[in-house]
Amino acid sequence: MASFSRLVRFLARDGRVYYGDAILPRGITDIAKTRQARIVTGDIFGKHEVTDQVADVRLLLAPLALEDVKTVRCLGLNYEKHANESKMAIPKYPVLFYKPVTSLAGPTDPIPVHQIAQEEAGLDYECELVAVIGKRCSDVSEADALNYVLGYAIGNDVSHRDWQIKRGGGQWSLGKGFDGWAPYGPGIVSSSLIKDPQTLKISTRVNGQTVQAWLTRSSQEENTADMIFNVKHTISFLSKGHTLLPGDLIFTGTPSGVGMGREPKLWLKDGDVVEVELESVGTCTNMVEFAKEAAKL
Amino acid sequence: MASFSRLVRFLARDGRVYYGDAILPRGITDIAKTRQARIVTGDIFGKHEVTDQVADVRLLLAPLALEDVKTVRCLGLNYEKHANESKMAIPKYPVLFYKPVTSLAGPTDPIPVHQIAQEEAGLDYECELVAVIGKRCSDVSEADALNYVLGYAIGNDVSHRDWQIKRGGGQWSLGKGFDGWAPYGPGIVSSSLIKDPQTLKISTRVNGQTVQAWLTRSSQEENTADMIFNVKHTISFLSKGHTLLPGDLIFTGTPSGVGMGREPKLWLKDGDVVEVELESVGTCTNMVEFAKEAAKL
Repeated sequence: MASFSRLVRFLARDGRVYYGDAILPRGITDIAKTRQARIVTGDIFGKHEVTDQVADVRLLLAPLALEDVKTVRCLGLNYEKHANESKMAIPKYPVLFYKPVTSLAGPTDPIPVHQIAQEEAGLDYECELVAVIGKRCSDVSEADALNYVLGYAIGNDVSHRDWQIKRGGGQWSLGKGFDGWAPYGPGIVSSSLIKDPQTLKISTRVNGQTVQAWLTRSSQEENTADMIFNVKHTISFLSKGHTLLPGDLIFTGTPSGVGMGREPKLWLKDGDVVEVELESVGTCTNMVEFAKEAAKL
Repeated sequence: MASFSRLVRFLARDGRVYYGDAILPRGITDIAKTRQARIVTGDIFGKHEVTDQVADVRLLLAPLALEDVKTVRCLGLNYEKHANESKMAIPKYPVLFYKPVTSLAGPTDPIPVHQIAQEEAGLDYECELVAVIGKRCSDVSEADALNYVLGYAIGNDVSHRDWQIKRGGGQWSLGKGFDGWAPYGPGIVSSSLIKDPQTLKISTRVNGQTVQAWLTRSSQEENTADMIFNVKHTISFLSKGHTLLPGDLIFTGTPSGVGMGREPKLWLKDGDVVEVELESVGTCTNMVEFAKEAAKL
């Protein structure tokens, strides 16, 4: 569908923001290491062109501009061991929730923590494969579902367990929707490069220490192969009676190892650096930044 | 903030779509009765003009174009009697959930019911005051909150109780987010006309029979005065650490009388006509339309 391999959005040395196709040094697959990109012009979901014009990348931004995303869908409890550690039942259907577009952020943006999310402990990380819808669709079959995917990214479904589970009245929305609580990127790897999204190692590190996957507690690797509802099934299910639009993002759930599932609990603190990584895609590295001033309310 | 009194979006006799300021006959307040409007040009959230050009209204559309809405926030359990009939606790904090922008529909659009929402009983109505954000804001105080409101509409938070409560894994998103399940309108009454949104009678009729409010079972009138968290508090709360954008909608919860709260249950059926009405704003009239063809999946 797309003519680019690894879509990035970036601030260039000329001070302007572009879409581009990442140029990676030989042997490197982490898009976060992109230093140059071929500028992409036109509609990234439609007619567009990867030009010969190469730009220097000063800063990678969220891979899609805010106005290019309509809806952010997320699955809960989509890995069996994570459902177990959350002390929740294995779901019979995909468990859907939404994050607002204002929660989206770039691969190196800080994760701002408002005063009301500092009152109680519970700030947590969740590495997730993010599928990016490329074409409008509804009621798609599983067999056809991946044809509607533009590509894949890695995202962090940042969550505050106290607001999510206790003070949210059972609905997860408030505790997961704060500004900047859905960093994703570092770019979007075209579905022409990732033919099967269920084969990718996925992991989180906090201050350099692996906490989800690769060398996890059980020393067992986490892999997108372990999803309860794979990407095909998820897209097909979510599209029943629901129109998916170009630029819609689907966060596909996190494997085990979240802070809530550990003893003692591992809550994120001011200044912590969280890295989420997906094989063949790359890394988002975001620092937790507690708001310092007194709450205005 | 806005120079219009009653914003409508409509298909005109010339076949084009316009924003307009509704012209209502003397003594009429229901915007649904709009037959003519003064065309509004420019940015409805910024610099705009109510022109002298009067157009004939052929059909009222959803008051905001899809690209003018970023996020649809909704409150659950925001009227005490509704929390009681739902057998849920009175919430301590506003209970937030989201509907996708694809659920938005116009004041006379059908409510499409997909096959997976026909499998079990549970299709229900919820009349709700909808506050429309006019200016970007975050961390606003209660005292200042209404200054960020462009105006008010009436909406129907259409819900399928089986998907919402049972098959949704506890998250309400799937059972409330189907295409067209958030009709609203018939226009947006400027906050300069409605200075206090907590004084408005609100009601639902199904096939002409009042089911929520005005002459309800208890013969007690339902009024937005009965909200647990009023609009000021809601906006202030939702804006903590969350940026609200122009065009964001807030569905503020429904009063008692929903189908789920009745004995016997009153579930919507194919062909039912649902009217939701808000004093000083008007009526949305939407027909339930069961998808007829066999599920493709």
